[in-house]
Amino acid sequence: MTTAVTEVRSWLLALQQRIASSIEAEDGSGCFLTDAWTKPPGEKLQGEGVSKLLEGGAVFERAGVGFSHVRGPSLPPSATQHRPELAGAPFEAMGVSLVFHPRNPYVPTVHMNVRMLAAHKPGMETVTWFGGGMDLTPYYGFEEDAAHFHRTCRDALSAFGDQYHPRFKRWCDEYFFLKHRNEPRGVGGIFFDDLSELGFEGGFAMIRAVGDGLLAAYLPIVQRRKAMPYGERERDFQTYRRGRYVEFNLVWDRGTLFGLQSGGRTESILMSMPPVVTWRYDWKPEPGTPEARLYTDFLRPRDWLVA
Amino acid sequence: MTTAVTEVRSWLLALQQRIASSIEAEDGSGCFLTDAWTKPPGEKLQGEGVSKLLEGGAVFERAGVGFSHVRGPSLPPSATQHRPELAGAPFEAMGVSLVFHPRNPYVPTVHMNVRMLAAHKPGMETVTWFGGGMDLTPYYGFEEDAAHFHRTCRDALSAFGDQYHPRFKRWCDEYFFLKHRNEPRGVGGIFFDDLSELGFEGGFAMIRAVGDGLLAAYLPIVQRRKAMPYGERERDFQTYRRGRYVEFNLVWDRGTLFGLQSGGRTESILMSMPPVVTWRYDWKPEPGTPEARLYTDFLRPRDWLVA
Repeated sequence: MTTAVTEVRSWLLALQQRIASSIEAEDGSGCFLTDAWTKPPGEKLQGEGVSKLLEGGAVFERAGVGFSHVRGPSLPPSATQHRPELAGAPFEAMGVSLVFHPRNPYVPTVHMNVRMLAAHKPGMETVTWFGGGMDLTPYYGFEEDAAHFHRTCRDALSAFGDQYHPRFKRWCDEYFFLKHRNEPRGVGGIFFDDLSELGFEGGFAMIRAVGDGLLAAYLPIVQRRKAMPYGERERDFQTYRRGRYVEFNLVWDRGTLFGLQSGGRTESILMSMPPVVTWRYDWKPEPGTPEARLYTDFLRPRDWLVA
Repeated sequence: MTTAVTEVRSWLLALQQRIASSIEAEDGSGCFLTDAWTKPPGEKLQGEGVSKLLEGGAVFERAGVGFSHVRGPSLPPSATQHRPELAGAPFEAMGVSLVFHPRNPYVPTVHMNVRMLAAHKPGMETVTWFGGGMDLTPYYGFEEDAAHFHRTCRDALSAFGDQYHPRFKRWCDEYFFLKHRNEPRGVGGIFFDDLSELGFEGGFAMIRAVGDGLLAAYLPIVQRRKAMPYGERERDFQTYRRGRYVEFNLVWDRGTLFGLQSGGRTESILMSMPPVVTWRYDWKPEPGTPEARLYTDFLRPRDWLVA
C-alpha cells in the first residue's frame, strides 16, 4: 500500500470505531458486534472489511457501520470514462458506510458514506477519487431537525469554498430519489462522487470533513427525539415508510446494486436494511395528519438553510 | 383489438376472478379489494389494469392478483433480438400475475404469472409470444408438498409433449435464483418466456394450462398446512425468509425492475411484496433444526417428481 492509501485506511478504521462508540453510548443498552471478514481467495475482487452491527438496542433497532477495502486487477470501463488513460489499471477502493435505524418513529434514520478509489497504473503516479455524503430520512418531520442537519453539512464543507454545499446538496436531492414513487427518500443532505479536482490532500480532507461531521449532524436530533412517546400508529407508519428505504436501496442505489451483482459481501451490503418493514396496498395518510405533513412539507426539495 | 387479443384478454380477466374467488373462499374471512386503474394519458405506455388485493385475511396475510394490459408505439430492441423484422412495431402486452403470502409459516408462498406479447407490424400478421410459470416458496419444507406442486406442473404441460416440463422446470430453477445469496428462491416449479414455437393457438393453450393449474397445485397444500400450530419461532423465521423474496423481486426479477424503471404502476407491481419482513445480520439456523432443513433439503435444485 502507498503511504496515502495507508493513511486513508487508518483514518477510516478510526472513524468507524469512533462513531460506533458514540452510538453505543447514546443507545445505553445495545453493543456493536464486530465481524472482521476476508473475501475468499480466488474471487476476482480481493479484499477485507470490518462490519459492526448493533441490533435490538434501546434507541437503535438496527445500526450498522461497515469498513471495507477491496482490490481489483483492472478498473472497470464505467470508472474510467473521464480518464481513458487509466483503463485497465489495478485499483483499490475503500470506505466506511453506515445506516442507523432507530426504534422511536420520531427519530430519523441516517445514512453516511465516505470512500476513496485509487488507480495504480505502472509508470504513473497513483490517481485518487473521493466520494461521500450523508442524508436524513425522517418518519415524522421536524423543521428544526432538518435545518440543523443541513447547517451541519454546510459547515462541514465551508472550509473548501462556498460553492460545494449548494452543489452537493442538489446532488443529494437528485441521487436519493425514488423515481417509481416520484418521491425523495428523505430530507436530503449532501452527496458527491468522483471528486478529483482537489487532489489527494483536498479530497481526503473533504471526506474527513463529512465523516467527522456525522455525529454533530445526527446526535442532537436523536437526543431531542428519542424519549418522545409514541404508539402503534406511529410505529405502523415507521415500518411502512421503511419500505421506501428498502425500495430505494435495492432498486436504485448504485453502490448496493453493484455490490450485490458483482459478488460483494451480501451481509455487509445489506446491513442497510431496516429490521422490520411492512408493505400495504396503496396506502395514503389522511390529509392534515402528521403523516400527511411528511409528504407535503418534508419529502420535497427545500432550502433548509432558510427554514 | 384483434380477435385473438380480445380472446386472451377475456380469459385472463376470468382467470383473475376465478382465482380471487377461490382464495377468498379458502381464506373464509378476508375479501379482495378490486382496484381498476388506467395509466394517465400522455405517458409513453398506455394501458389499464385491475388489481385485486386481500390484506389481513385469516389464511392469507397479503394476497395480490393483478391483471394489466398495456400498449406501446414501438417494441423495445430487447424484445426483437430474434425477430429483427419486428423492430419498432406497435405492441401490446397483457397478463395476470399473483403472489400469495400466507400468515401461517407452514403454508408456502406461491407466485404465478401468465402473459402474452403481441406485435402489430403494418402489413404483417400479428405476431404473439407467450410466457408464464408458477413457483413455490416454503418457509418450512414438506417433501409431499413440493412433489405435489411439481407433479401438477408436469401434468399441466403434458398435453404439449414430454419435452416441456423438464425444460421449463430447469428454466424456473435458473430464473428464481438469488445470485448474491447463492440460493434458490424456493423449490421452483416452471417458467418460460418468449414462447412462439407453438403459434398463437398453442401458446395460448399453454398459458391456459398454467393458469388453470394454479389452484390445483396450491390449494391442497394450503388446506394441509393452514391449521398447523406455530409460535413466535416459526413466525420469526417466516418474516426473515420473506426478506429473500423482497431481495429477489427488487434486485433480480426482470419484470419488477422493468416495470418500476419504465414507469409502470408501482402499487400494482409491488403487490408482490410481503406484508411484514425482517432482516437480521448474518443469521444462520442451528444445524439439524427444521429451519436448517429448509436450506439443506429444499433450497437446492432437486428432481421433485421422484421425491
